Amino acid sequence: MNDIHGLAAHAAGAHLLPYKYDAGELKANDIEVKISHCGVCHSDVHLIDNDWGLSKYPFIPGHEIVGTVTAVGSAVIDRKVGERVGIGWQADSCGICEWCRSGNEHLCAKSQPTCVGRNGGYADAVRVNWRFAIPVPESLESENVAPLLCGGITVYSPLRNHGVRPSSRVGVIGIGGLGHMGLQFAKAFGAEVTAFSTSKEKEAEARSMGAHHFVNTRDTGALKKVAGSFDFLLSTVSADQDWAGYMAALRPKGAFCVVGVAPSPIQIHAFALIGGQKSLSGSPTGSPSDLHEMLDVAARHGIKAITERFPMAKANEAVAKVKKNQVRYRAVLAN
Amino acid sequence: MNDIHGLAAHAAGAHLLPYKYDAGELKANDIEVKISHCGVCHSDVHLIDNDWGLSKYPFIPGHEIVGTVTAVGSAVIDRKVGERVGIGWQADSCGICEWCRSGNEHLCAKSQPTCVGRNGGYADAVRVNWRFAIPVPESLESENVAPLLCGGITVYSPLRNHGVRPSSRVGVIGIGGLGHMGLQFAKAFGAEVTAFSTSKEKEAEARSMGAHHFVNTRDTGALKKVAGSFDFLLSTVSADQDWAGYMAALRPKGAFCVVGVAPSPIQIHAFALIGGQKSLSGSPTGSPSDLHEMLDVAARHGIKAITERFPMAKANEAVAKVKKNQVRYRAVLAN
Repeated sequence: MNDIHGLAAHAAGAHLLPYKYDAGELKANDIEVKISHCGVCHSDVHLIDNDWGLSKYPFIPGHEIVGTVTAVGSAVIDRKVGERVGIGWQADSCGICEWCRSGNEHLCAKSQPTCVGRNGGYADAVRVNWRFAIPVPESLESENVAPLLCGGITVYSPLRNHGVRPSSRVGVIGIGGLGHMGLQFAKAFGAEVTAFSTSKEKEAEARSMGAHHFVNTRDTGALKKVAGSFDFLLSTVSADQDWAGYMAALRPKGAFCVVGVAPSPIQIHAFALIGGQKSLSGSPTGSPSDLHEMLDVAARHGIKAITERFPMAKANEAVAKVKKNQVRYRAVLAN
Repeated sequence: MNDIHGLAAHAAGAHLLPYKYDAGELKANDIEVKISHCGVCHSDVHLIDNDWGLSKYPFIPGHEIVGTVTAVGSAVIDRKVGERVGIGWQADSCGICEWCRSGNEHLCAKSQPTCVGRNGGYADAVRVNWRFAIPVPESLESENVAPLLCGGITVYSPLRNHGVRPSSRVGVIGIGGLGHMGLQFAKAFGAEVTAFSTSKEKEAEARSMGAHHFVNTRDTGALKKVAGSFDFLLSTVSADQDWAGYMAALRPKGAFCVVGVAPSPIQIHAFALIGGQKSLSGSPTGSPSDLHEMLDVAARHGIKAITERFPMAKANEAVAKVKKNQVRYRAVLAN
């Protein structure tokens, strides 16, 4: 009687098929959420295709979930029935390790992703530990919030945790599913924002989303022209890049952070780091604490994902379009 | 009448020859220092050989200088005749840019290295801007202080600026001219310290200098055994390394900082940075403010370079021995 219905992948790269599972008794710390919207993140495509070798079939993809709490377990202390919540990449963690204790649950070694070894949000409902269901501020539309919960936090956290501030000169590399939110958040931090893109036709839209400057990276010598210009560069691109050029584009003490995964190893000469006291870093999604903060910032600054809506039943169509990078900028399934 | 006598390189790789230059009128912000000791840093060898393409011949090498102030310019506000001071890599900076204003003079674009385009410390005297002559605490021996002024600050600054503290697990990679000071400073920060070396015969000495653990990196699977162990790794090695192995040896939020320059580009896959929110960084020498602080810490904690003394006249012998990596651990010339 606790059946949840959704669309599941049964093998690597397979079309999603209707699927139901018995969620069993509600655990003490879990809540059940009736899903209204779920984003289609590029990570879902990687999981469906088992690109990372960690998929467990069958499973229901989806980890950018917005919905309403319909049941709370006996030990839940901070969520209630009827509340609108958002759920991202993570559904549970051990709760007792040093990372959980210090508000870094996303770094817990026993972190449970929402749709790896569990069933996610291409469904009518989902269950997660209450600590990973974040209240959604009233002014935000569910459809525009869903992609913030994985894509948004992926760009928000590094901006926050690298100390971006109003004096910072920030570059967002790649103006797509992640980058279009990165521009908006970088602007909210008060920074001087530059958009880097291979598509010059995105310039006007990038400027409307917060970019003060636009660099067409296909232009000859584009990176040389901005040498020594940036305190923080955030790369959302999943392709090999001119690493030396971007390191040279940093000012002293500058940081280059990757959230996109290039296929080949990143190559940087030690001298490119040492002289200017520079760094290269990576950032995963973000902690529940950062998710709370990000949603507050989104509400205050009117930040939203630009979305293309699909009915839940057309999830396969949405997945195919995401895979072909044809969505501007995030696909969202709606029940 | 303002002749300074020293030993100069006249061409790439040439033996040092006696040389004198007229220092001219003392500039308003400069001081003159009678040199008692000067360390022979590996950077001197690179400059003599013009490995970095920035040497200007003839020049007197030497940038780990200890001596006594013998004259002060008319605008000097904080050094006086008779004071013992130390001078490191940097002899002057613009004084007005944002980096100079914020106590980061070592990042000034107009920074003047002590022996590039100027004459350094293999000499009887040297002149520098007073801001780059740091008072030496009385309890420290000049011979043991000299190598702190470039080698020491190179390892002190990154430990300090990456926030190493008593809860930190720190690894120092390469127990040589830099690493043997790195172990001592890491211990002073209260960290749990691990020495990484290819020379197992260095274990006892590494432990005496502050290492709680010793990893012989020639042992099969040595890095795998310490996977997920370190908050901060400092590499002093000038050779290509198992970058993936060291990144995996970091705990979440861990930082890998290079101060040694590997010949090939460092190669790291984005996934090795993203999942654990890790970073790779580089660090140059350090600011005058960090130099002041480092000397105070050295005095408080009894930290000193382990030295081999050569008379100034035998500078060529010292340079040759440094070049062959046969000094344990720092060569110092004495007048």
